[in-house]
Amino acid sequence: MAIAITDHTTKAFDADLLELTRMIAEMGGLAERQLIEAVDALVKGDRAHGERVVLADSLLDARQRDVELKAIATIATRQPMAIDLREIVGILRIANELERIGDLAKNIGKRVDGLNGELMPRKALRGVAHMTELALHLLRDALDSFAEKDGTKAIDVRNRDEEIDAMYTSLFRELLTYMMEDPGTVAFGIHLLFCAKNIERMGDHATNIAEAVYYMVEGHAFANERPKADATSGMTIAFNTSH
Amino acid sequence: MAIAITDHTTKAFDADLLELTRMIAEMGGLAERQLIEAVDALVKGDRAHGERVVLADSLLDARQRDVELKAIATIATRQPMAIDLREIVGILRIANELERIGDLAKNIGKRVDGLNGELMPRKALRGVAHMTELALHLLRDALDSFAEKDGTKAIDVRNRDEEIDAMYTSLFRELLTYMMEDPGTVAFGIHLLFCAKNIERMGDHATNIAEAVYYMVEGHAFANERPKADATSGMTIAFNTSH
Repeated sequence: MAIAITDHTTKAFDADLLELTRMIAEMGGLAERQLIEAVDALVKGDRAHGERVVLADSLLDARQRDVELKAIATIATRQPMAIDLREIVGILRIANELERIGDLAKNIGKRVDGLNGELMPRKALRGVAHMTELALHLLRDALDSFAEKDGTKAIDVRNRDEEIDAMYTSLFRELLTYMMEDPGTVAFGIHLLFCAKNIERMGDHATNIAEAVYYMVEGHAFANERPKADATSGMTIAFNTSH
Repeated sequence: MAIAITDHTTKAFDADLLELTRMIAEMGGLAERQLIEAVDALVKGDRAHGERVVLADSLLDARQRDVELKAIATIATRQPMAIDLREIVGILRIANELERIGDLAKNIGKRVDGLNGELMPRKALRGVAHMTELALHLLRDALDSFAEKDGTKAIDVRNRDEEIDAMYTSLFRELLTYMMEDPGTVAFGIHLLFCAKNIERMGDHATNIAEAVYYMVEGHAFANERPKADATSGMTIAFNTSH
């Protein structure tokens, strides 16, 4: 009888875990969609589209709460073993990262309004669109590493975050130059910089997801410090005030 | 005997809860300290000080992990009732918000390097310092509302977040004007804007803490939508290109 009960508990726990995994996949899809829609609205300068992105963020917030409550109810009722607890802790962390990606997409959606000008070169917008593609790939691979419980794929995500950081650094430099050469581009440029910074941070959150997956699979954090290539926070560039 | 066991479990649970409450107070103190130190480094342009703030952030990250693991172990071993679970969920959320405040302070610490110039008026730095004071007050009151389980104080925090948002909007406008009038201030101005935005977001996180407290005390979220006064994301201002 005792074995039967344990079996039953294990099956119920597995069902809970499966449901949580499905919820994370759904949140991941929503987060991807929000990023795509926000940058689409940005590039097209479509304010109504930007507003829809802002409104849709509450769905992702609600989903995170659902994951949190479901995870805690699972822990409270199934009393899982240490290794299963680790999986649930990882799921809680991933839901949190996805919610933060949603917040950043929402902020881009809000900025579409401020970017309603024609002064910034298309090249800068293309830079943001390119960063977005990289961030999406990273996010998808991080979510795949979770779905497949693949620690190697997780390490790969961690290593590729550098590319986004480097692209942000170069875009930052480019936008700064435009703004200093033509003060009429300052307002537009700042909004675009904030958008680019948001995408760069999404890369960090994708990496955090990969770290959570690695921890779930391996039982310990990544061995060495994460590589970083966003050098803009300490950036001072030569001023060109002679225009 | 059954009652004795229940008593024992309740006492053990209360001790866990007390320990978690202490850990949150410690994290709150660390987060406050990081904000104070980061802005101090910023205002004085002290790079070494900024670097120390960056390094110290890992302590706050570690403390958040500790809270998370302790909370989950408590749920797994004590099988708390719904109302006690609600308290632990609230504690997990508060720890998460404090960790995010730490990240924002760290980012200000990083930017001290980029702000090593004399071009921006002291007035703008004073604006940031003033925003910081407001954010600190809000954070302290949010933490007090947690320590005292005071729902009324939590509502008060929520209502006061508007002040920081309004101050950020005004500082944003001011910095934009400087940058457009004197392109030599663009690099400096952007770093300062990112710092101001970070402080504005800390106000949001303090409000999130207040919301978590309110939920713990009342069992439901704040009734009406949070007031918002940061209008900069949609801001386009008249360009002055005639400098």
